[in-house]
Amino acid sequence: MAAISQPEATPPVDAMVRDLARQARNASRALAVANTETKRAVLTRAAELLEGELAEGIVDANARDLAAAAENGLSEAMIDRLRLDRDRLAKVAAGVRQVAALPDPIGTTDDLRTLPNGLRVGRMRIPLGVIAIIYESRPNVTADAAALCIMSGNAVILRGGSEAFHSNRAIAVAFTRALADADLPEAGVTLVPTTDRAATTALIAQDAYVDLVIPRGGEGLIRFVTEHSRVPVIQHYKGVCHVYVDGDADLERAVAIAVNAKAQRPGVCNAMETLLVDRACAAEFLPRLAEAMGAAGVELRADEESRPLLPGSVAATAEDWDTEYLALVLSVRIVDGIDGAIAHVREHGSSHTESILTRDEAKAARWLREVDASLVLVNASTRFNDGFELGLGAEMGISTTKMHAYGPMGLEELCARKWIAHGDGQIRE
Amino acid sequence: MAAISQPEATPPVDAMVRDLARQARNASRALAVANTETKRAVLTRAAELLEGELAEGIVDANARDLAAAAENGLSEAMIDRLRLDRDRLAKVAAGVRQVAALPDPIGTTDDLRTLPNGLRVGRMRIPLGVIAIIYESRPNVTADAAALCIMSGNAVILRGGSEAFHSNRAIAVAFTRALADADLPEAGVTLVPTTDRAATTALIAQDAYVDLVIPRGGEGLIRFVTEHSRVPVIQHYKGVCHVYVDGDADLERAVAIAVNAKAQRPGVCNAMETLLVDRACAAEFLPRLAEAMGAAGVELRADEESRPLLPGSVAATAEDWDTEYLALVLSVRIVDGIDGAIAHVREHGSSHTESILTRDEAKAARWLREVDASLVLVNASTRFNDGFELGLGAEMGISTTKMHAYGPMGLEELCARKWIAHGDGQIRE
Repeated sequence: MAAISQPEATPPVDAMVRDLARQARNASRALAVANTETKRAVLTRAAELLEGELAEGIVDANARDLAAAAENGLSEAMIDRLRLDRDRLAKVAAGVRQVAALPDPIGTTDDLRTLPNGLRVGRMRIPLGVIAIIYESRPNVTADAAALCIMSGNAVILRGGSEAFHSNRAIAVAFTRALADADLPEAGVTLVPTTDRAATTALIAQDAYVDLVIPRGGEGLIRFVTEHSRVPVIQHYKGVCHVYVDGDADLERAVAIAVNAKAQRPGVCNAMETLLVDRACAAEFLPRLAEAMGAAGVELRADEESRPLLPGSVAATAEDWDTEYLALVLSVRIVDGIDGAIAHVREHGSSHTESILTRDEAKAARWLREVDASLVLVNASTRFNDGFELGLGAEMGISTTKMHAYGPMGLEELCARKWIAHGDGQIRE
Repeated sequence: MAAISQPEATPPVDAMVRDLARQARNASRALAVANTETKRAVLTRAAELLEGELAEGIVDANARDLAAAAENGLSEAMIDRLRLDRDRLAKVAAGVRQVAALPDPIGTTDDLRTLPNGLRVGRMRIPLGVIAIIYESRPNVTADAAALCIMSGNAVILRGGSEAFHSNRAIAVAFTRALADADLPEAGVTLVPTTDRAATTALIAQDAYVDLVIPRGGEGLIRFVTEHSRVPVIQHYKGVCHVYVDGDADLERAVAIAVNAKAQRPGVCNAMETLLVDRACAAEFLPRLAEAMGAAGVELRADEESRPLLPGSVAATAEDWDTEYLALVLSVRIVDGIDGAIAHVREHGSSHTESILTRDEAKAARWLREVDASLVLVNASTRFNDGFELGLGAEMGISTTKMHAYGPMGLEELCARKWIAHGDGQIRE
């Protein structure tokens, strides 16, 4: 031991993040008991600021990010995702108003019943507390996440990508100002005010103050967070989604669903990556599929058996079955009926979205029951695995692990349920 | 790099645990799709074996554990908890039959609705997969955990305390044999066949095969598991439970509830550790409390203001407010009404069980809404935070963290919910 004791050196970023997290925890207590009208007023005011008073400042801040992006050689697609103009801001504001219009889950109770001893018990929805979200690129996530967390009574710590830093900061101001206008603590929405990467590591170590971390981005980010976090993490690694065309499918509809699942928006996690086809209908179905996919500009990678039936296809390799292309590429494999399809999905699926196309209700029921994915479909496109499409409103991300939430995370999934019991003197015998 | 490459040395315990976990994962697939009748038949058969054919072997195995416990100087209380005789085995079997009689959650759906596009969506309960439970002493946990996991379609890996090793192993045989009798894989119930402590560390590293870890035991065990686990952990650190006696309480009932909460079974987590009393009724209530607690053999540790009102009490120290006594000791503090009580619970509570005693419905409603604990009560004893008492049937433990489950974990809490959607050709526009 040294003769004169020194306080342990704390890097300034660590100390700053800990302070922010502590303040967010305090703020979460006020948000947890805020009533529905107050939370709606905050979101309405934030939406107003986003397209009104603050719009010019946000567009200017975005211009700084765009200039840096061009300088750093970001792709056109990435620059486009980053861009904010008045039109896009109006859409962001509309999204915030949409969240404000959703039913408030906090304080709602279910499973109510009266026990034989007269104790009335039930479960009441409460906020989780403090939610940290770590995300890349698109600055609209800043507004979506802030709106969802405020409406569900949670405080949020936003850790956006460095390429959108100025945009994110300018958007966050709309929420902190709206919170202050409602006499709620500004720390309810906290943007980590640095691009220093050490801030991420510091954030996921704050298990005393942060209840949940949601990483949204590439697999590398998610693995890093999962491995280093002391806080529970909601994971979403990738979407290797399948459509299985059964021998009893309506083949015309099957072609339309397959094209939609693959090509309507190929760069997203709920797009189909592999099509499985029952041997029983392969000879009839695959040539029609090849024609439609060809017209949609999709490259086909086929297993040995299906290749002759798919003009213009190339040979699939073992790697293809585990690849999330996020592009106009589709792997195709012939399987032995529903058993073969279930076995393939079990081995190569990513617990994301799996669809069967069949007119046989027994097979449909078996698929729904036996296939393990956050959304399992019958006779519909995989593209429906999305909070808006499933009727939840906005989403905070999609969970592909089963703890706490499985699938799109809307307001309810940002809540816990506590037990409540109302008695008149009950004691335990 | 060495000239001749050597396979990396893997300690034999690590390799064994990984193998067991992989087999449990495979077994979980069969259990996930087993129907209700099959699962009930497994539990009924296991109960039959526990009190029939295997009873003598279990009692003999238990005798070895008891002999070792005596040799190792375990306390009488611990030895009693460890002891199994025919009577206790009959109770264990009855508990297994009780689980078999519970409604099967797997495959049940809720939140069913039809979206504007005609897609019928809902959420279906599915098993989590493989659950590891790490527990100390009482061998009946082996049967409870196995029964709950089988009924909820999960595979379970049991890691019991070394002091009950032979008893646990003998009990587990009832379940593996019952699984085999129903043509289900024996690995659905796996007891870690060693007392080597390295097995625990290896088990919580199996994130590829294990979905959830539930540690049940002292705070040290739980902290160790939380810090080292790569698998999500359900935590339950301790129960520092409060009863708040409001100025509007029925004081006669309040005395009865307080004595029940403290003294009916002081060694459990849902026993009261601190009583908070409204200044408004302290002078009237505390002398009556002192008399009743004295009669129940409870030592009182009082804050400065309440001490003169509590004959025979000693002075509480700052440490008392954070202590889980698990004994006939109670700390008492006078607070400024419900605000003071909520502030005390916020600072010293353990998110376990918090009860208000009042006849004022507005204060009751505020307590239910604002106090953060897995069970929040009005006018009832804290002792009701228990799966059986709340009508869940047996429980796998109590969660005091909000992720996934908060409160007693019964069959439903051992499930996840996946989204299901049934269409007739829906594609996304």
